[in-house]
Amino acid sequence: MSKKNVAILGCSGAVGRQMLTCLEERDFEVGDLKLLASKSSAGTFLSFKGEKIEVEEATEASFENVDIVLSAVENDVAKMLIPSAVAAGATVIDNSSAYRLDKNVPLVVADVNPQDIALNSGIIANPNCATIIAMLCIAPLDKIYGARRIICSTYQAASGAGLAGMNELFDQIKCIANECEMQKPHAFCDQLVMNLIPQIGSFVEDGYSTEEMKMQNEGRKILHNANLSVNCTCVRVPIARSHSESITVEFENDIDLDEVRRALSHAPGVNLIDDIDAKNARDRYPMPLYTTNQDLVFVGRIRRDISSNKRNSLSFWCTGDQIRIGAASNAVMIAEKLE
Amino acid sequence: MSKKNVAILGCSGAVGRQMLTCLEERDFEVGDLKLLASKSSAGTFLSFKGEKIEVEEATEASFENVDIVLSAVENDVAKMLIPSAVAAGATVIDNSSAYRLDKNVPLVVADVNPQDIALNSGIIANPNCATIIAMLCIAPLDKIYGARRIICSTYQAASGAGLAGMNELFDQIKCIANECEMQKPHAFCDQLVMNLIPQIGSFVEDGYSTEEMKMQNEGRKILHNANLSVNCTCVRVPIARSHSESITVEFENDIDLDEVRRALSHAPGVNLIDDIDAKNARDRYPMPLYTTNQDLVFVGRIRRDISSNKRNSLSFWCTGDQIRIGAASNAVMIAEKLE
Repeated sequence: MSKKNVAILGCSGAVGRQMLTCLEERDFEVGDLKLLASKSSAGTFLSFKGEKIEVEEATEASFENVDIVLSAVENDVAKMLIPSAVAAGATVIDNSSAYRLDKNVPLVVADVNPQDIALNSGIIANPNCATIIAMLCIAPLDKIYGARRIICSTYQAASGAGLAGMNELFDQIKCIANECEMQKPHAFCDQLVMNLIPQIGSFVEDGYSTEEMKMQNEGRKILHNANLSVNCTCVRVPIARSHSESITVEFENDIDLDEVRRALSHAPGVNLIDDIDAKNARDRYPMPLYTTNQDLVFVGRIRRDISSNKRNSLSFWCTGDQIRIGAASNAVMIAEKLE
Repeated sequence: MSKKNVAILGCSGAVGRQMLTCLEERDFEVGDLKLLASKSSAGTFLSFKGEKIEVEEATEASFENVDIVLSAVENDVAKMLIPSAVAAGATVIDNSSAYRLDKNVPLVVADVNPQDIALNSGIIANPNCATIIAMLCIAPLDKIYGARRIICSTYQAASGAGLAGMNELFDQIKCIANECEMQKPHAFCDQLVMNLIPQIGSFVEDGYSTEEMKMQNEGRKILHNANLSVNCTCVRVPIARSHSESITVEFENDIDLDEVRRALSHAPGVNLIDDIDAKNARDRYPMPLYTTNQDLVFVGRIRRDISSNKRNSLSFWCTGDQIRIGAASNAVMIAEKLE
């Protein structure tokens, strides 16, 4: 691969910073590197391969001579700036939800549907974090059995609300430890430490939240499976940066548990940890403490759904780093696959 | 009700202490009160209505002249001592799982199947905590529509492992706050703070844990519904003492959401908090921070299961104090209903 001029749009947030680290870790062939953020961050410095790089204010004129934009800004900023980047000839990999359901924008999990990258007209959308983590586990099984219905309960980390979310959780943990008075929360709608918040995003239709509808809407597009139905319950839990999910999937066809495990053990991006008979308790099933700051989704607790009287229903548990595989790493992996 | 002589067996644990507090709060007409525990706690004192009472070592001879035993000991101790209590003429309300599935022992949620209390031959079993919380919400709907299949993911607090579990979590929180080295966990199989542990109990059959099978086995008995199938995923989360549950229920008959809400708003022991259009974010849905140290199970996030192509499937979220309504309060409520 020849060197590419890269811009990170929204470089000062949790995902933007991780994108920078991922480029470095993965030895991405970066030519010129532009770090773009809002006016308030302009003039600060971030380091890349030992070099200090100044953060510039992102404007519509920022994208001249840029080949690839890794975007980690909110929907409104994405909609304002990404068209200029595309007009300037860049390919944009966008982590916001602004373009995900746009017919002309491929929605890509790098290890699931990389073939869709070629269909882009300048924008490739990075899916929702909980959706990426689930799809990495479901896609290899969908290929064999045909996924029809998903019932998912999530356990989502503070990092889903960015650095502000993680900092708020750490401040609250200190407050519990030191028995001081809890500050009014800002990143979340209520105290997160010692609590669970069963709302992520806003409520839209039929009592579901925007976050809960993403797994159905985005899952259908990623798997090219318009018949997929998803019932998701998204819950924020007081942990730092790995999302976990308890998932039951009904397939068109009957499943074979050995075949399921074999498929998941060979699936790219997936680490099968599913030995509940092992003597070493640490290796029995996935736990979010151990998925932090790496790129594999851990999957385990694989079993038949005993509530079903059919042979086509599977339950499992998976967990992955929300900032990395749920966002930044997937974006950089897509960038690696660009011509 | 005339005064009853009461013994609390296992008085020094989290549930035992809560039983003592519940007797006091509910003005239970206590005659003589015996506080029984293991040898190591004997000689310590607990207070009841301003009076200090000495803890005695529990032996087979402890139950003379006792009318009601509230038992909060582990299965092995329950099996060793409860037969002596019954032989001495006491009625035992047992919080262990030792007798729950015994045909001759009623398994009772006080606000669900109090009529079963009359069937006892000396022992009444208190159900599993997560099962009590779920059944308080499901029973009123089972009456109307007939529950057939439950898919449940739990978010269970540290208190399920008693005082040791709660203390371990608090120690770990202090450790995170002060950046000190984490001690090896004892109450749980791994670090709980900043983590989720998808195992409660031991693994038994088909990849499910003992805790996960309780909701099916005990749920069938409590609801007198032998056809109920339950697929449970039990997960320990780093919060103190309220269990939460994400539940989808398929019924025999089609559901009506207004009727569901009406039934739950009138259900004993249940507090319906289900207004996602409200402007006051705090009142929108149940959160475990607000169910601590009271006896109602909060239920909300009520909606149709959009993954089902039928009209008989419901999803909701509920949370309740594990030590109180999940254990001690239910036991005392059963005691209140004894002749």
